[in-house]
Amino acid sequence: MNATRAVCFLSDYGYEDDFAGTCRGVIARLAPDVRLIDVTHGIVRHDVLGAAFVLRNTLRYMPDRAVHLAVVDPGVGGPRRSVALRSGRDRLFVGPDNGLLVLACDADRGVVAAREIANEALFLSPVSETFHGRDIFAAAAAQLAAGLALDEVGPEVDPATLVRLEIPKVRGTKHGLKATAVLVDRFGNVALNLDAERLDKAQLGDPVELVCRGERYLARLARTFTCVQPSDIMVLVDSYGQVAVAVNTGSAAEVLGLEAGDVVELRRLPGNGPACPPTGV
Amino acid sequence: MNATRAVCFLSDYGYEDDFAGTCRGVIARLAPDVRLIDVTHGIVRHDVLGAAFVLRNTLRYMPDRAVHLAVVDPGVGGPRRSVALRSGRDRLFVGPDNGLLVLACDADRGVVAAREIANEALFLSPVSETFHGRDIFAAAAAQLAAGLALDEVGPEVDPATLVRLEIPKVRGTKHGLKATAVLVDRFGNVALNLDAERLDKAQLGDPVELVCRGERYLARLARTFTCVQPSDIMVLVDSYGQVAVAVNTGSAAEVLGLEAGDVVELRRLPGNGPACPPTGV
Amino acid sequence: MNATRAVCFLSDYGYEDDFAGTCRGVIARLAPDVRLIDVTHGIVRHDVLGAAFVLRNTLRYMPDRAVHLAVVDPGVGGPRRSVALRSGRDRLFVGPDNGLLVLACDADRGVVAAREIANEALFLSPVSETFHGRDIFAAAAAQLAAGLALDEVGPEVDPATLVRLEIPKVRGTKHGLKATAVLVDRFGNVALNLDAERLDKAQLGDPVELVCRGERYLARLARTFTCVQPSDIMVLVDSYGQVAVAVNTGSAAEVLGLEAGDVVELRRLPGNGPACPPTGV
Repeated sequence: MNATRAVCFLSDYGYEDDFAGTCRGVIARLAPDVRLIDVTHGIVRHDVLGAAFVLRNTLRYMPDRAVHLAVVDPGVGGPRRSVALRSGRDRLFVGPDNGLLVLACDADRGVVAAREIANEALFLSPVSETFHGRDIFAAAAAQLAAGLALDEVGPEVDPATLVRLEIPKVRGTKHGLKATAVLVDRFGNVALNLDAERLDKAQLGDPVELVCRGERYLARLARTFTCVQPSDIMVLVDSYGQVAVAVNTGSAAEVLGLEAGDVVELRRLPGNGPACPPTGV
Repeated sequence: MNATRAVCFLSDYGYEDDFAGTCRGVIARLAPDVRLIDVTHGIVRHDVLGAAFVLRNTLRYMPDRAVHLAVVDPGVGGPRRSVALRSGRDRLFVGPDNGLLVLACDADRGVVAAREIANEALFLSPVSETFHGRDIFAAAAAQLAAGLALDEVGPEVDPATLVRLEIPKVRGTKHGLKATAVLVDRFGNVALNLDAERLDKAQLGDPVELVCRGERYLARLARTFTCVQPSDIMVLVDSYGQVAVAVNTGSAAEVLGLEAGDVVELRRLPGNGPACPPTGV
Repeated sequence: MNATRAVCFLSDYGYEDDFAGTCRGVIARLAPDVRLIDVTHGIVRHDVLGAAFVLRNTLRYMPDRAVHLAVVDPGVGGPRRSVALRSGRDRLFVGPDNGLLVLACDADRGVVAAREIANEALFLSPVSETFHGRDIFAAAAAQLAAGLALDEVGPEVDPATLVRLEIPKVRGTKHGLKATAVLVDRFGNVALNLDAERLDKAQLGDPVELVCRGERYLARLARTFTCVQPSDIMVLVDSYGQVAVAVNTGSAAEVLGLEAGDVVELRRLPGNGPACPPTGV
């Protein structure tokens, strides 16, 4: 049992079809003693960048000894490689070589080993052209979780050749910062690719002006939903340490018309009000 | 193993985001041998009353030795307490002190012990302002399920000080009963806060008249969907013993325009027809 | 432990309500050591035929030693029987006798034993009129998975008396084949009741003409999404070996207005182009 790992499973398969469930079956067939954790299957279809952020954000909340199976794979059946990675903290990652895995692996002390998943003895047979999640990735993840050595999955890959996503950069502007929306949750909260330290350093004060899609909005810098009025627009640090735009008891995505990929400028205003009082006071 | 409990997990986190999955990870990290049962994460956002009914209704179908983790928490980050309760049947309940837990605990031979979850050694660190489900509730539930004594979570709470929901009351009227819609399921069946005995005692006969939102409808008192015609409006006792309004092969919520919180009057009609024939005849 | 089986659970219960979760609780109560695999609960409400195909398609990806609990049950509370079947490969199936189970069982070397689930000692008490999934099927499946002999569930049933679905047939036409849409996935891919061999034998060439709902479309015969242009209509063999209509980076269901049950004619065209080049070239 010491050799086994949990499988943490993330995909854009949704819940209506059997895709995630069929992969669960494959894992249970090949690794009956392994624990399976569904991280989410609600990633927006083909949103590799969003999925990469979710994988990175949730990593530290998952068991340390785990195989992270992540499948958002618009290039299935094409020339993209299938890969398995080991991070500096000895987590394993299995999925397509389209950038999905590397953001999390980099944040976990980097890629210390990479292999192409090419050992056909590990695959289900026949391998379909359209469902590598089942026939290659779930099968490989299950066998790695059950104790298979990483070396067994296929030939070494130079980590420098792994596909990396272009992560939008935060830019300083005359009046503040320009950041990019990377994730929108079901409540309409919009996470930016901006961390709390960078925001603090910019000392924008409270409130700030948000500029997005050509419109301007006044937003409170707040720590919790309970310290602003209903319908107030807020800028807060979300539970994963990302700066996010939110609307109290509403949807920032709707109110500001924001989608993943949109640029949001946060601007300093003259004469800012006092900070939000401490929680519970 | 004897000391462990299952964790039964209910929330309004939905399925699109990683919220429920991240809590699953936390539980697996802290209690790797504990069984996790997802009751549902489809509670309507912030619907504490609806969630309280679901928790109470499903309780008897869950393992006896369990920690019931329930998170519908519009007040997260504010002054509401985090609590852990023990019922008279030795079930444990973990969640916010907003009324969500007490309805079920009362129905399970009452609250016999209550503690504020305040022992920071049990929390994930840092504790976010917006995701206590992960950092406090899932962490505490996992550790209780793994064998932690309830006393360890924090100071005693007087059960009389727990927040209790105002449960809508059934009222007798000149022509019958007035009840309140408490839960609408995905099929559009509308459960009322009215139990079968109270309905029987009122002897309304069959059919009955329903009055809601200013409109009147004729409804059959029926035991199953198969003993009325398609599109018939029915009043039946649902599988949790609650009286519900349904439309055969349709949606009562749509046909009658009903939402949780609406008042429905059930009125006696003169000259009622015969009762529905026995099943299978 | 040798005597236990996994429970593979498929239904149209959806995810918003507690229906699937309550059945999970019942299974965990009655069979605490049994592994539960959620195949899907996203079957279209009351779509017995679609569910029967999903059950058949996913069967070989599930553990060999399993009880397949399948609940799509528009006749609940009426005269339809509850049944448990054993296939030639020693898989067990539990659900309503409405055709849902037999398609999969037939494909698994046939029904070698059938019993009516009638032993009330196995049921939850009281049995509701509307939720046999919980009170009868989940309870029986859990006990079978925990080691109960099939004979114990109730009297023998003649397999010839089991309800069988009318499966739409493929018909040859002057210009090709007429098939029927049986499953639409969340991506809008439309699976036909037509297998790859039958399509190959018809030698329709590439491209083909599709005729459905009175309209004609040109479609590529392709092996993967990556070997056609975006928005191209394709005919491909899906990952379960069924011929499907798809639109690259789009929804065939939307573009062609297709729903389950629709007839699609695939017609040979004069002067067909070359086949799709091999993957990765």
